[in-house]
Amino acid sequence: MTQTLTNQSRSSALKALKCKECGAEYELQATHVCEFCFGPLEASYDFSRLSQPITRESIEAGPNSIWRYRSFLPVETDTPIDVGTGMTPLLKSHRLARQLGLKNLYIKNDAVNMPTLSFKDRVVSVALTRAQELGFSTVSCASTGNLANSTAAIATRAGLDCCVFIPADLEAGKVMGTLIYGPTVMAVQGNYDQVNRLCSEVANTHGWGFVNINLRPYYSEGSKTLGYEVAEQLGWELPDHIVAPLASGSLFTKIYKGFREFVDNGLVDDKAVRFSGAQAEGCSPIAQAYKEDRDFINPVKPNTIAKSIAIGNPADGVYAIDIAKKTNGTIESVTDAEIVEGMKLLAETEGIFTETAGGTTIAVLKKLVEAGKIDPEEKTVVYITGNGLKTQEAVQGCIGQPFEIEPKLGSFERALERSRTLDRLDWQPVLV
Amino acid sequence: MTQTLTNQSRSSALKALKCKECGAEYELQATHVCEFCFGPLEASYDFSRLSQPITRESIEAGPNSIWRYRSFLPVETDTPIDVGTGMTPLLKSHRLARQLGLKNLYIKNDAVNMPTLSFKDRVVSVALTRAQELGFSTVSCASTGNLANSTAAIATRAGLDCCVFIPADLEAGKVMGTLIYGPTVMAVQGNYDQVNRLCSEVANTHGWGFVNINLRPYYSEGSKTLGYEVAEQLGWELPDHIVAPLASGSLFTKIYKGFREFVDNGLVDDKAVRFSGAQAEGCSPIAQAYKEDRDFINPVKPNTIAKSIAIGNPADGVYAIDIAKKTNGTIESVTDAEIVEGMKLLAETEGIFTETAGGTTIAVLKKLVEAGKIDPEEKTVVYITGNGLKTQEAVQGCIGQPFEIEPKLGSFERALERSRTLDRLDWQPVLV
Repeated sequence: MTQTLTNQSRSSALKALKCKECGAEYELQATHVCEFCFGPLEASYDFSRLSQPITRESIEAGPNSIWRYRSFLPVETDTPIDVGTGMTPLLKSHRLARQLGLKNLYIKNDAVNMPTLSFKDRVVSVALTRAQELGFSTVSCASTGNLANSTAAIATRAGLDCCVFIPADLEAGKVMGTLIYGPTVMAVQGNYDQVNRLCSEVANTHGWGFVNINLRPYYSEGSKTLGYEVAEQLGWELPDHIVAPLASGSLFTKIYKGFREFVDNGLVDDKAVRFSGAQAEGCSPIAQAYKEDRDFINPVKPNTIAKSIAIGNPADGVYAIDIAKKTNGTIESVTDAEIVEGMKLLAETEGIFTETAGGTTIAVLKKLVEAGKIDPEEKTVVYITGNGLKTQEAVQGCIGQPFEIEPKLGSFERALERSRTLDRLDWQPVLV
Repeated sequence: MTQTLTNQSRSSALKALKCKECGAEYELQATHVCEFCFGPLEASYDFSRLSQPITRESIEAGPNSIWRYRSFLPVETDTPIDVGTGMTPLLKSHRLARQLGLKNLYIKNDAVNMPTLSFKDRVVSVALTRAQELGFSTVSCASTGNLANSTAAIATRAGLDCCVFIPADLEAGKVMGTLIYGPTVMAVQGNYDQVNRLCSEVANTHGWGFVNINLRPYYSEGSKTLGYEVAEQLGWELPDHIVAPLASGSLFTKIYKGFREFVDNGLVDDKAVRFSGAQAEGCSPIAQAYKEDRDFINPVKPNTIAKSIAIGNPADGVYAIDIAKKTNGTIESVTDAEIVEGMKLLAETEGIFTETAGGTTIAVLKKLVEAGKIDPEEKTVVYITGNGLKTQEAVQGCIGQPFEIEPKLGSFERALERSRTLDRLDWQPVLV
């Protein structure tokens, strides 16, 4: 059944789609489920076919975006859709680290990813590049918000028609951050899992490229760049421990795959990296299965403010559990109140305004430190995956208020006096 | 009066503050107005004192942020506050260029600048680095929003206390995008010019570092990096024409200064670059003076949705006019309705969601093209300076609506049918 495209360039290592369960191989088409065992398909590569070996120098000479890792990505073109996605900062934490009692904490900040301020720009850049190669003229997605933003923005830049599906109760910033690009938006009365099921039906009946359904084997590979970049930014070295959010579980498994590929290609030394995952208690099917030592997921109905990671039936949940277990990591969940505290903690210590998903990850990081599950000396990387401007509802009412003053020195002085006697969170909007 | 610091490193070319009007020189302290003629002070440099010459290679070997240009910036430290600010994408425009009939249009996208999504992160990174060198422990600013976001975020990362002043009627996203970092926020009942006057009084009575008042000579130099980056990203070449927004006029003059410094240091060939400026009609004191061929500004009272550039009494207005005139550029203004159309045009063609200031710049670009004031062949760079998620109010009600559907294939099919018969802007939220 394996058949590689004859016109494939020597700068692409993409070989076939391969079932993660039974290993059956498939042509490099828009398909995502194994015909034999219904397992998920994943892109596989033959790096030996590249005309030039991949070296640190060849990567460093590449563009300042995810496309510096093109040989590891499931595309064949030499001219991918490059809107500057990726190469977001890896910040050494000072104030948050001190507060938590950690000595080697790093923050990978995809809250400022380009163009739409979440890690989804990585997967969408890859998926739409592949969609063009496969001849699609209309692209689509089932989204909890960030993916809709990204698909709509990058599709219009690339001249592709776009129709996105979102749950009808999404945050205003995410809806507007999609509509502005001019796609067709379908607001589905239901949760993400219902949106996803509807989209699977549409994918079967229309000739559209759904980035996270029939293009999923290509799309999901984009998350590997979150592994590559961290390794490169640490000076070509793997970290000791990573903490990342779990929605479908895909991101988690792809960071792992990215690290392994770097080791296998001699770009970094091998090392045991611990993988810990974060979920919101209101939608924590993976954390629950982990806690109960199950190797299957019981789907749940999401009820949390962390909507972008609220997937009740996570496709890669069992793979995420497997990785956490075999790397001596863990999976933990936190309440909505802890999520808001996590958002504030990150903003007030490091100047990073993340959305609820990032708040979840920071809150889990804190919980793991307090439980002694992170060694203070460990080189720990925490992944921040989206921007707080998109989920302003989450922190409204819990971040203090401005002092309303007249444009006079005396009015300012009185407000300043008052600010010094009040705890910030007790502030009320007052005219002084 | 000139006195250079004795402990200044050989990697800094910073020499003195110099009056732009009478040329008097001052020590490198927190001061911004000439004692003799009340002209504005500006940082001056002696590049010959550097122990290593500045070359393209030395810049390219630097960090992936504005600090690759450190030798051109008014700081002395070798460890500035670097949160990844700068090196935002310069995108070759395809769809917008085609729509406007331009052949060589580029978009400098600071809507995704780090950490707070506007060009202000550049000037604040410089100002707060200098504030630390000068020994300030509390920093402040008078802001139309973006500056408050940036000052609060970078101050907290650097461990500085922070108090910001904003007009009380600011967009919700900008207020929240400041409060989240935990500074003291003073919401002043008045417009930006009143806020600014109050802050000048506070600067005189408190020992605070106001980034855009007593630290302004350092702060404003950060905008030069918008010139350096464009030149480097064009392959070490200057553009033919730039279009940028005008608020105080400072950004405009500093891009010019940046280009000149690159020429003077042999990094790019000299070339005539045309400078065109953009204002909102509801606050266009610079455009009005330009149109009436005045060499002075008549202050105005702002009334426009483009709040981030609504400065009625612009400090660098006359310098901006001078540059537009001597480079054969122009200054133009557009209505609020045109600004919204500009935001939509950029989003729908290039996938970039900018705030009202960016909409102003795009609308002016369009107007200049239609008036024959931009040659289709000219290598034109348009500067996008902020993110649309912060000014969602501006486009609410003008960007279409989602189709509300049930999670069923039939409901989707009916909505799709309807979407094809309707112009997007006529859509209403309908349950199909």
